[in-house]
Amino acid sequence: MAKDLVLGIDIGGQSSKLGVVDADGAIIEQTVISSLQTELLAYITDLTNAIKELVAKTASIGTVKGIGIGAPDGNYYRGTIEFAPNLKWSYGPDGKPTIVELATLVKNFTGLPVTVTNDANAAAMGEMAYGVARGMKNFIMITLGTGVGSGIVIDGKVVYGHDGFAGELGHTCAVPGGRQCGCGLTGCLEAYTSAMGVARTAREMLASDSRDSLLRKLDPESISSKDVYDAAKQGDALALEIFQFTGRLLGKSLADFIKFSAPEAIVLFGGLTKSREFFHDEMIRTMEENQLSFWKGKVKVLYSSLKDSDAAILGASALAW
Amino acid sequence: MAKDLVLGIDIGGQSSKLGVVDADGAIIEQTVISSLQTELLAYITDLTNAIKELVAKTASIGTVKGIGIGAPDGNYYRGTIEFAPNLKWSYGPDGKPTIVELATLVKNFTGLPVTVTNDANAAAMGEMAYGVARGMKNFIMITLGTGVGSGIVIDGKVVYGHDGFAGELGHTCAVPGGRQCGCGLTGCLEAYTSAMGVARTAREMLASDSRDSLLRKLDPESISSKDVYDAAKQGDALALEIFQFTGRLLGKSLADFIKFSAPEAIVLFGGLTKSREFFHDEMIRTMEENQLSFWKGKVKVLYSSLKDSDAAILGASALAW
Repeated sequence: MAKDLVLGIDIGGQSSKLGVVDADGAIIEQTVISSLQTELLAYITDLTNAIKELVAKTASIGTVKGIGIGAPDGNYYRGTIEFAPNLKWSYGPDGKPTIVELATLVKNFTGLPVTVTNDANAAAMGEMAYGVARGMKNFIMITLGTGVGSGIVIDGKVVYGHDGFAGELGHTCAVPGGRQCGCGLTGCLEAYTSAMGVARTAREMLASDSRDSLLRKLDPESISSKDVYDAAKQGDALALEIFQFTGRLLGKSLADFIKFSAPEAIVLFGGLTKSREFFHDEMIRTMEENQLSFWKGKVKVLYSSLKDSDAAILGASALAW
Repeated sequence: MAKDLVLGIDIGGQSSKLGVVDADGAIIEQTVISSLQTELLAYITDLTNAIKELVAKTASIGTVKGIGIGAPDGNYYRGTIEFAPNLKWSYGPDGKPTIVELATLVKNFTGLPVTVTNDANAAAMGEMAYGVARGMKNFIMITLGTGVGSGIVIDGKVVYGHDGFAGELGHTCAVPGGRQCGCGLTGCLEAYTSAMGVARTAREMLASDSRDSLLRKLDPESISSKDVYDAAKQGDALALEIFQFTGRLLGKSLADFIKFSAPEAIVLFGGLTKSREFFHDEMIRTMEENQLSFWKGKVKVLYSSLKDSDAAILGASALAW
């Protein structure tokens, strides 16, 4: 008998990952498209083509019944992406991030029901169903990718809030009066502890610090967090300091997030966690230093155990059931 | 026929308010005792005597079936007050705040079942049942009293978190590297936007600012937030600036709190709200300035509509049903 299947989509700043998932949470077919399209129509064309291809490929196994999408600034209640500064195709004619009726568009072009949520909420759902947060009722997922996202789980449920936008912890203030963030505010955590943020820290430190560094061989404008990681791997002192600085800011913010919902654990996820050997200890030290006495040493910090793309695809697919 | 009654207790830094409440939420008898006792046994003696007196006074109307207590650092799961720096009688022999088994003590001395929660959670429950948050499913209660507390309501339920300590927003960092707080951390919101915090701001500004002020007639060490209010009422420029500074820090923190749970409203409560005419506009301005675009102008800031003591007594009593 043909199985019931769902399709999970994880829209990230760089790429969008799609996977067809069965009722047991197995990803039976997947693909990736670029998120770097600048035109909405071009991106939606790529996305719906990829969806149709996956649906066709899995037709012998089962029928895709619905689509769940995790996207930056995705709104669960409204099925929209609203004001996502890291997705160029979400910009309006005035050059500013605008409201994309994502669920409506994808539903119209595929004929399938579509549910949208914040990418970090999707990752949190995936982690709760299949990852390190299995069995946990209270945790906070922080995604350290191109930007910084968050999915908050309280009593076993993702928090959406009054309007569907809960969990914008990447835009809480980490440094009062600090760096300009893509969202329009200044000093946001995302401007420091994302892949972009680490690259900005590198540029700043290279300008303000006269020490020799492997990073000086690179064009400052094109330095990436991967470059900083590679330099740190070779013991480069400046690169190591960049990650220490990153860990310190992240740890301080995590301490404050815990004061909100008293989670059992913080789960970290996303590309930047590949550099955790260089920021983990400083992050934990700073988190504990800024923790209220009754939480000191008690709140776990875990790293996603799922393959990078899987948590978000599985989480998004869970929306579609 | 004798009614079923419950007893709600609101333990504040200065005083503890007790009220016997009927099933319609009417407070039919109430009393107040001091919270300033330094010995635990002395405080518990006062408290249980007051309870017995209220139970006796209302015996002709009905039977008190249980007690609900809202207290700083009250833990719903454990029935304890843990590490409450503002309650001297909660300090251990080593001079540090310790764990008071409040539910057990009061139950033993009164024979009634006792439920404990954080004072701000109790106020939030009262506000949701009888006040400005009636019908709201998502709001954050911030109590601006001797300290700063918070009660977070998501999907109509108070958030307790993994260990019962959720909602310690008064100890999130408002000023990195700022004032020493009673909790052991530095720069906490409570060290600035509480009654104590306003008095500290007054002392700091009097020392750093050479302008004339009505406040200079007072002993700096004994200045209270009420003194600052009285001076502001007379148009004293320094006093007005103290409240502007307070509003600014509060507004910035509120903007970040909204990023967590996307509430429909923030509800402010407590003694310091009596000075709102002097900080409200600056608080709102700063909150909006630090708000993500999709929340600008959308999240209400309301003041408790219940009499100061009533919200917390009613909320605490709701625990006992």
